[in-house]
Amino acid sequence: MLDDLAVILFRPKYPENIGSVARACLNMGVTRLILVAPYNLDLDKARPLATSHARHILDTALVVDTLAEAVQGFTAVYGTTARTGGWRKGIMSPATLAGVVDERLRSGGRVALLFGPEDTGLTNDETSICSGLMTIPTSREGTSLNLAQAVVVVLYECFKRALDAPFTPDGPPEERATTVQEQEALFENLRETLLAIDFLKDDNPDYWMLPVRRFFAKINLRRNEFNLLMGVCRQVRWFVDRHAPKR
Amino acid sequence: MLDDLAVILFRPKYPENIGSVARACLNMGVTRLILVAPYNLDLDKARPLATSHARHILDTALVVDTLAEAVQGFTAVYGTTARTGGWRKGIMSPATLAGVVDERLRSGGRVALLFGPEDTGLTNDETSICSGLMTIPTSREGTSLNLAQAVVVVLYECFKRALDAPFTPDGPPEERATTVQEQEALFENLRETLLAIDFLKDDNPDYWMLPVRRFFAKINLRRNEFNLLMGVCRQVRWFVDRHAPKR
Repeated sequence: MLDDLAVILFRPKYPENIGSVARACLNMGVTRLILVAPYNLDLDKARPLATSHARHILDTALVVDTLAEAVQGFTAVYGTTARTGGWRKGIMSPATLAGVVDERLRSGGRVALLFGPEDTGLTNDETSICSGLMTIPTSREGTSLNLAQAVVVVLYECFKRALDAPFTPDGPPEERATTVQEQEALFENLRETLLAIDFLKDDNPDYWMLPVRRFFAKINLRRNEFNLLMGVCRQVRWFVDRHAPKR
Repeated sequence: MLDDLAVILFRPKYPENIGSVARACLNMGVTRLILVAPYNLDLDKARPLATSHARHILDTALVVDTLAEAVQGFTAVYGTTARTGGWRKGIMSPATLAGVVDERLRSGGRVALLFGPEDTGLTNDETSICSGLMTIPTSREGTSLNLAQAVVVVLYECFKRALDAPFTPDGPPEERATTVQEQEALFENLRETLLAIDFLKDDNPDYWMLPVRRFFAKINLRRNEFNLLMGVCRQVRWFVDRHAPKR
């Protein structure tokens, strides 16, 4: 049902939770599970929680070492966080996220939902790659959800949304959504370009890139738009190289 | 937050699930947990899943032998089922249920959400006491949710709804919602009365009472309306006793 939606568990600690997540995926029509550097991948402990029905999801889960490998091929990644302070503004509710995910999937995108380790959650290192963040509302007395329960709530919202209206992916290939790698390549290009024209400050360009990243996270960037922007960056840098005083 | 909402687990099998349910309750602002004849109440196995934060919910859980004891004092009980066939029509989605629960709580009611054993779910014996039934949408490939995951999804919908608008219970005492016991007393009275006037068939009156039960489940019956109906029944039976030919 949600064939182009995947769940990424970043450094999960307990194999039981991995099993429970596999079962939750099956319940909500998701079959792709990706595990980034699991702390303990003891399948004997994970399988009973997955139950026999979801065993195939567990057994075909992709296990990788880094988040960069995990997000390869996805057009958008949404992270889950319980920490909503600081610059983590504009954080979505699961219902809002479900609408965004639905829109992305309909336009032919491939979406990953990213969940952090049980004890610490995602750090800024991981959330910086995300197209958006989401938090599950909780009572003030208990803000920390079990990992598999967080997954089932988010997937339930996505599944509910998918039930409301079946998918109709469309559009020619050049209008396909860009992958996370393409977006990262564009950010890298933009960063260098904006540095070249002294728009970004040299001392901490990544910090000044955050609003740029947020701007693009909002846009479901297509391949032809990506080509256009990459071309503009190239041209600006050619111009700077040729005309600007060397530093 | 959801002080007048409780979770009843009917004959849960695994203590780990009881612990996970306690944690889910805490996350979603519910503090009342009732256990009906748990198969294995091994607190050493339940507590780690509850985490220290939800330990008080586990430790203060009410343990009873029968469902009748569990529902005492509640004004409405909603059951969860994965079986949606047969007469189990008009089954609500969790979102619809959350709206109904919200309305009941606002009018001063006390609501219980009932979940069956992990393997078999609720049987007709248990669902017959319910004011309504609800099912969580799932993919066709995996229709059976983990007990604690089912609980967290349903509570999440109720919590979300409660966040949208704070409660404002109101109304004088005689307009308070009737308890499940009062409703059962009324059904018993109606049953005897409808039998006395030959409205119900003698061979299976409980079956013919089902539409009557469904009708009253829709109505948030108040204490003064209950008194009125009990009085009408009493009068009808007095009249029958006095005037009808003895059988």
